[in-house]
Amino acid sequence: MTPFESLGLKHDGRTLWVLDQTQLPDAEVWLDGSAPEDMIALIKRLAVRGAPLIGVAAAASLATCAARGASAAEYAAACAALRAARPTAVNLMWAMDRMKAATDPGAEAQAIFEEDVRLCEGMAQHGAALIQEGEGILTHCNTGGLATAGIGTALGVIRRAHEQGKRIHVFADETRPLLQGGRLTAWELSKLGIPSTLITDSMAALLLRDGKVQRVLVGSDRVAANGDFANKVGTYGLAVQARFHGVPFHPVAPFSTVDLACPTGAAIPIEERDPAEVRGHGRLRWAPEGMAAWNPSFDVTPVELVTSLVLDRGVYSAGQLRSGVLARVCG
Amino acid sequence: MTPFESLGLKHDGRTLWVLDQTQLPDAEVWLDGSAPEDMIALIKRLAVRGAPLIGVAAAASLATCAARGASAAEYAAACAALRAARPTAVNLMWAMDRMKAATDPGAEAQAIFEEDVRLCEGMAQHGAALIQEGEGILTHCNTGGLATAGIGTALGVIRRAHEQGKRIHVFADETRPLLQGGRLTAWELSKLGIPSTLITDSMAALLLRDGKVQRVLVGSDRVAANGDFANKVGTYGLAVQARFHGVPFHPVAPFSTVDLACPTGAAIPIEERDPAEVRGHGRLRWAPEGMAAWNPSFDVTPVELVTSLVLDRGVYSAGQLRSGVLARVCG
Repeated sequence: MTPFESLGLKHDGRTLWVLDQTQLPDAEVWLDGSAPEDMIALIKRLAVRGAPLIGVAAAASLATCAARGASAAEYAAACAALRAARPTAVNLMWAMDRMKAATDPGAEAQAIFEEDVRLCEGMAQHGAALIQEGEGILTHCNTGGLATAGIGTALGVIRRAHEQGKRIHVFADETRPLLQGGRLTAWELSKLGIPSTLITDSMAALLLRDGKVQRVLVGSDRVAANGDFANKVGTYGLAVQARFHGVPFHPVAPFSTVDLACPTGAAIPIEERDPAEVRGHGRLRWAPEGMAAWNPSFDVTPVELVTSLVLDRGVYSAGQLRSGVLARVCG
Repeated sequence: MTPFESLGLKHDGRTLWVLDQTQLPDAEVWLDGSAPEDMIALIKRLAVRGAPLIGVAAAASLATCAARGASAAEYAAACAALRAARPTAVNLMWAMDRMKAATDPGAEAQAIFEEDVRLCEGMAQHGAALIQEGEGILTHCNTGGLATAGIGTALGVIRRAHEQGKRIHVFADETRPLLQGGRLTAWELSKLGIPSTLITDSMAALLLRDGKVQRVLVGSDRVAANGDFANKVGTYGLAVQARFHGVPFHPVAPFSTVDLACPTGAAIPIEERDPAEVRGHGRLRWAPEGMAAWNPSFDVTPVELVTSLVLDRGVYSAGQLRSGVLARVCG
């Protein structure tokens, strides 16, 4: 394969390396993700995460195992196993469908990587045009260079607006239970020098009430045909807060996140993870050992709470989404 | 002083002991809070917390230093210093005003302790009458035996409804940044055997949307004359979510939490704490070291979002609160 490199993924021509996102920001440790079975484990424990990046990384892992001489049967089995590694993110399924049909896996994985970079550029261009000088922008989870092969989805839009000199201020919520906002978005914002403040998830409503936030931008793991979308748990609550306070709310995603086979958000499967992530575990257990906990990884926000969806191909209002624009734009 | 004991505070006749709530649920460590300067430090670092308990504990500390022979000047200085230990919780100021005027500090502190126990009973009686068989109840922060001298405010109401056999299910949010829900409420619920589930703060909206919560009960650190109230940060967001989803929302507080000198919530001072609590620190720092963070300890919920306020003296609707019932009931 041709070498490539992004913030969280790189290929040196022989080996595929992924930045272990569970160790950020304390340590930047690169792990070998060449073998699909290793990549599946990395995806499951969120060492590799972000719906677009998961698709790119899984494709690169498949291409690497093909280059190392996997049989057709091994390749097909690895493709199917990778496809099931995370049930909510549809980009992974989209990438695996492309890899399954590919005649040259190396070229296909390379194309998926490069396409993701371009998709990020498209979202950044369309999304940044929405942002006004001096806005406070609230974001959730991590949607930047660590979540994609390019500059990101929602955080890519924010980065582009900052590069355009719009004097924005970003509020990143920490995104419990796994702190992707506090660890990863804070790390990216710090590296990029974008003025920003970290808050707990519970402080977002107060920021909105105080008029410190003029726009909410989030990513997405799957957009249904009607514009409902799934994203990291907590997104739905932010959408309600944005609506209550009259602040525009935008999911940002590449067309590969749109799943036209899902008519509405009700058809999106929601992964539930180990309750220990909520309760704490090991030396970081804060709740009593026997306490029951609920840990849905995602929630679904109905299109009624969306101001507009920022795609790589343009910006679509809730009205357009409800009238079926996604079938025309992404079909 | 006559010995007394509650879940988080005890006096053996010579020494005042407080349960270090920062170490719960891992360890039950009792610390000497007899000296007012020690009690101030314990309050500031939240070893002792909960608006009613802070008032009771500060009064007991003052009485103990008086019994040990403090001069009138030392007593007055300690009273003033304790009064300033937490700016938002008004119960502390109420208790210090009583202690300042008291001729027998030991008897006054004992009376404050016993009154708090009775106030909890009053809230439990009035509040539990609101709760219907089979309800899911969402609560925030810790408002139980650890926050008062008695069975609690919001959690006391929940406990009484459980004791009445109403088959309720409690959802406790973890209450970042200091996890009073995940550590303390979870610990109390486990000890009491009340069916319950821990969630992150960001999951509350999803529970409400899914119809799993029929009522939200929270405590308060200060209630203004018009019914606006301050409570642990995150409360305002829950009030918005409850309103959006059509679910009743009730603050629960003793009359000593009502501050008739505050006309509205805008007059309530909001304590901001160290940003390191949001960013993490020491071996538990998750955000990049230089990341800015915001850490307001409390937020203010306007009376418009309150269904009714549960006081020890009765339940008052938002309409009654707006028409000035608190001046008549608590004046």
